[in-house]
Amino acid sequence: MSRVRVHNFSISLDGYATGEGQTEEAPFGHAGHRLHEWFFPTRTFQSMLGKSGGSTGVDDAFAAATEPGIGVEIMGRNKFGPQRGAWQDEEWKGWWGPNPPFHTPVFVLTHHPRPSIEMEGGTTFHFIDASPEEALRHAREAAGDLDVRIGGGPRTVREFLAGDLIDHLHVVIVPILLGRGERVWDGLEGLEQRFTSVETVASPSGVTHVTYSR
Amino acid sequence: MSRVRVHNFSISLDGYATGEGQTEEAPFGHAGHRLHEWFFPTRTFQSMLGKSGGSTGVDDAFAAATEPGIGVEIMGRNKFGPQRGAWQDEEWKGWWGPNPPFHTPVFVLTHHPRPSIEMEGGTTFHFIDASPEEALRHAREAAGDLDVRIGGGPRTVREFLAGDLIDHLHVVIVPILLGRGERVWDGLEGLEQRFTSVETVASPSGVTHVTYSR
Repeated sequence: MSRVRVHNFSISLDGYATGEGQTEEAPFGHAGHRLHEWFFPTRTFQSMLGKSGGSTGVDDAFAAATEPGIGVEIMGRNKFGPQRGAWQDEEWKGWWGPNPPFHTPVFVLTHHPRPSIEMEGGTTFHFIDASPEEALRHAREAAGDLDVRIGGGPRTVREFLAGDLIDHLHVVIVPILLGRGERVWDGLEGLEQRFTSVETVASPSGVTHVTYSR
Repeated sequence: MSRVRVHNFSISLDGYATGEGQTEEAPFGHAGHRLHEWFFPTRTFQSMLGKSGGSTGVDDAFAAATEPGIGVEIMGRNKFGPQRGAWQDEEWKGWWGPNPPFHTPVFVLTHHPRPSIEMEGGTTFHFIDASPEEALRHAREAAGDLDVRIGGGPRTVREFLAGDLIDHLHVVIVPILLGRGERVWDGLEGLEQRFTSVETVASPSGVTHVTYSR
């Protein structure tokens, strides 16, 4: 069966995967870019920007593992955009411009479904009001033999973890204290016992990659 | 001036430095020994038990850095023992037997001062009702040119960090989720900015050593 994977999920040492105060200008609120600075220099990210070059060490190895074999992404609504409640601005099509980096169907979890949006490059956003289990069933149908990526944000990852739905969890610990925002680990006591393998590697960039898999 | 140091401060991935439900039989509550399993195989710990042998890799290197240059330890009352409130059992002399591993004066922070206890091997427990700043002043007088170690538990470490009193902080991240207990990071947003150096290394044992210093 296809696997359910989380990649490059960056958290502060105090367990926040995003800061407080998300806006259109600040997708991660007061965290700014600090949780993802390790990612920007990688060859993988530079290539997404259409640039050549970039680092090719352990950070890039993990960054590059994100795409292969993925047929669908599921994301929470707050990863898609800063609007809350009923959609005010239906022109909003995500933070990623006309050609988002997903290149697959993307299921956006929301209590306010709206028509799907087909973007360039193979990405289509579908908006569904569904439990993690239901969303995963839809995603697996769409993904065929391929895997499903849970793209975040923290609440979505936490809910899928709470439902024991994730087979591969790659967390990146950034040694900063955000102090506030959305925490990922609440209510997940003993999570490590659901996985058969836990591996940790520190990067020269200062972050630590922890991989849980089964 | 002498430095204020924290060593081998083990936390779960969700930021708990001790579990819930401390008792005489379970100093770390439901966490059991899980936060310190990395420490037991080290040559440093084996030697504390009077045994030879033990691991000599990165975990031992950090373990061995704990003692040299320390003139005093400050600890919270909950590290000293499981009693709360007024002392019921004055026979309690800590978890460590007649010859505790400190071999220096130890200041125990408590709202219930009691007479000092002189142990074998150079350890004397002094019980003081003092703020972190006051305790540190006493400790520095007793330590002379030597450094002061803040020995825990989590609340004590957090209060000294909140007061910006710590010069060297060695944290050991254990990739488990305790889910409950005493968290160390609350209210410490931006802590990393007080230090000039942050270094991370993963150990083959599975833990990650993060060192903040200035």
